[in-house]
Amino acid sequence: MKYGIIGTGAIGGYYGARLAQSGQEVHFLLHSDYDYVCTHGLQVDSCNGSFHLDHPHVYNHTADMPPCDVVLVCLKSVNNHKLKELLPPLLESDPLVILIQNGIGVEDDVQAMFPSLQLAAGLAFICSAKTEPGRINHQCYGQINLASYSCRDEALLQQVLAHFNAAGVKAGLVEYHEARWKKAVWNMPFNGMTVALRAQTDELLRHPATRQLIREQMMEVIGAAQHLGVKNIDESFADLMIKMTDEMTPYSPSMRLDYDFHRQMEIHYLYTRPIEIARAAGFRMPKLEMLEAELRFLSDYSR
Amino acid sequence: MKYGIIGTGAIGGYYGARLAQSGQEVHFLLHSDYDYVCTHGLQVDSCNGSFHLDHPHVYNHTADMPPCDVVLVCLKSVNNHKLKELLPPLLESDPLVILIQNGIGVEDDVQAMFPSLQLAAGLAFICSAKTEPGRINHQCYGQINLASYSCRDEALLQQVLAHFNAAGVKAGLVEYHEARWKKAVWNMPFNGMTVALRAQTDELLRHPATRQLIREQMMEVIGAAQHLGVKNIDESFADLMIKMTDEMTPYSPSMRLDYDFHRQMEIHYLYTRPIEIARAAGFRMPKLEMLEAELRFLSDYSR
Repeated sequence: MKYGIIGTGAIGGYYGARLAQSGQEVHFLLHSDYDYVCTHGLQVDSCNGSFHLDHPHVYNHTADMPPCDVVLVCLKSVNNHKLKELLPPLLESDPLVILIQNGIGVEDDVQAMFPSLQLAAGLAFICSAKTEPGRINHQCYGQINLASYSCRDEALLQQVLAHFNAAGVKAGLVEYHEARWKKAVWNMPFNGMTVALRAQTDELLRHPATRQLIREQMMEVIGAAQHLGVKNIDESFADLMIKMTDEMTPYSPSMRLDYDFHRQMEIHYLYTRPIEIARAAGFRMPKLEMLEAELRFLSDYSR
Repeated sequence: MKYGIIGTGAIGGYYGARLAQSGQEVHFLLHSDYDYVCTHGLQVDSCNGSFHLDHPHVYNHTADMPPCDVVLVCLKSVNNHKLKELLPPLLESDPLVILIQNGIGVEDDVQAMFPSLQLAAGLAFICSAKTEPGRINHQCYGQINLASYSCRDEALLQQVLAHFNAAGVKAGLVEYHEARWKKAVWNMPFNGMTVALRAQTDELLRHPATRQLIREQMMEVIGAAQHLGVKNIDESFADLMIKMTDEMTPYSPSMRLDYDFHRQMEIHYLYTRPIEIARAAGFRMPKLEMLEAELRFLSDYSR
């Protein structure tokens, strides 16, 4: 069985390297550090044990990669338009494509590009960063949840779960809509607010005004999810997310890092799409609409 | 007829000096630049003609001021708790007290302090700043509208209007609730958003996301006003305010200046009170609630 990793960054580099280290055949697509990794291999510094892949299978074009059974798409969602070019060489064998990406609506859009594709969602709970060429720094957490979106080969999905667990990555199977919306309950308030107010998670929760605002934004996401028929989500989930964040190390979410390093922010799939999907179903998220507008402004007039 | 000016800053200094220059007897309460003005007088640099008052009547305690017929309160509203001490020495002659201040609810609170006080609202449309001790810089505009809140002496209010107009200050009589809420339509979006996004009015209107957000916030204020029974206000007023701002010189509202110079922002009367008043009547302003929370955070963790 062959794995293809599209985007060997903080996420794809970590999960792909774990699978490779555990004995799976993994083929990595690289971009900026292709030459470096060809020569020096891939280093993973991890809270769960560091390791080095001396000779990973690396490529800088998907056309050079072999047919894969499972493709992990680990690009930032702002680059998803590139999948139109990147994926076709890998699709001959009808692989399962797993989008390990943030936000709501990514599967809808990739499915529209490739109507017969088998798709699943990957929801990563991980603090990881690519700190220099060929080097992944996995700081903490690491669990991944998978959810079928249009997977026809249920056994294959189970196989992937087993491979992850065998590689030391805790992995579980979850319901698609519930999983995506539950992740949005944390992602939508904290990603944007840490940018809008240049703050970390702990500062936002320490001030009573923003603590309440964060909770109200979470309730907007929960309200939207309930309105869309998502099960097993109610007010108690907001309390749980706030309690969890209170107990976390002060944290800068990925959007804050993108903003600080002047990279494009994932506004579209983290905000615009869920807001549009909820609005089309008759539910408004006014505070998150405002946050989206602030982020669009900050993205264009970075100050 | 005697005028008392409580707070000889950008607003009180300008209007008081205009009245004095036109021949009215005006008594100024000063604080930080009392000694300077005693010695050097008060300079007004104005787009409508500059002038100097050589020997204005100045005080640093209201107890030393004579009984006044009209008292203009020109403090920033964050200092209104001081009125409990400042006003009593001036109240023997049952003067008309005009609050030339920003926001919603200032008259309610001052009336609660002094139940038998005759109160009016003063709504200033002016760009003015105190740039150094004893020196007011009046850049443009200057109109003032007055509205009775609990004025029993209608003739006195008319007299004040006449004095303003005779002093070269365009002044008109308006309806209290309509005037305060109409001013809030501009003030609530622009004061806070220029702070939250460190932007000027023109930048906020140039970006389509914030242009729409500003309009939605204006519609929240208009919705609240309509809900509270305010007359003559509808969607067309938002369009008018946006058009007016499009045509204005790029502008930093008073709250932005307060933020930049690390002075206390008028969050309470510009946001908290109108939001509370509307909510108590069953109307929510979610985007302005969010803006209030952001401002409270920024006010406490200035960055």
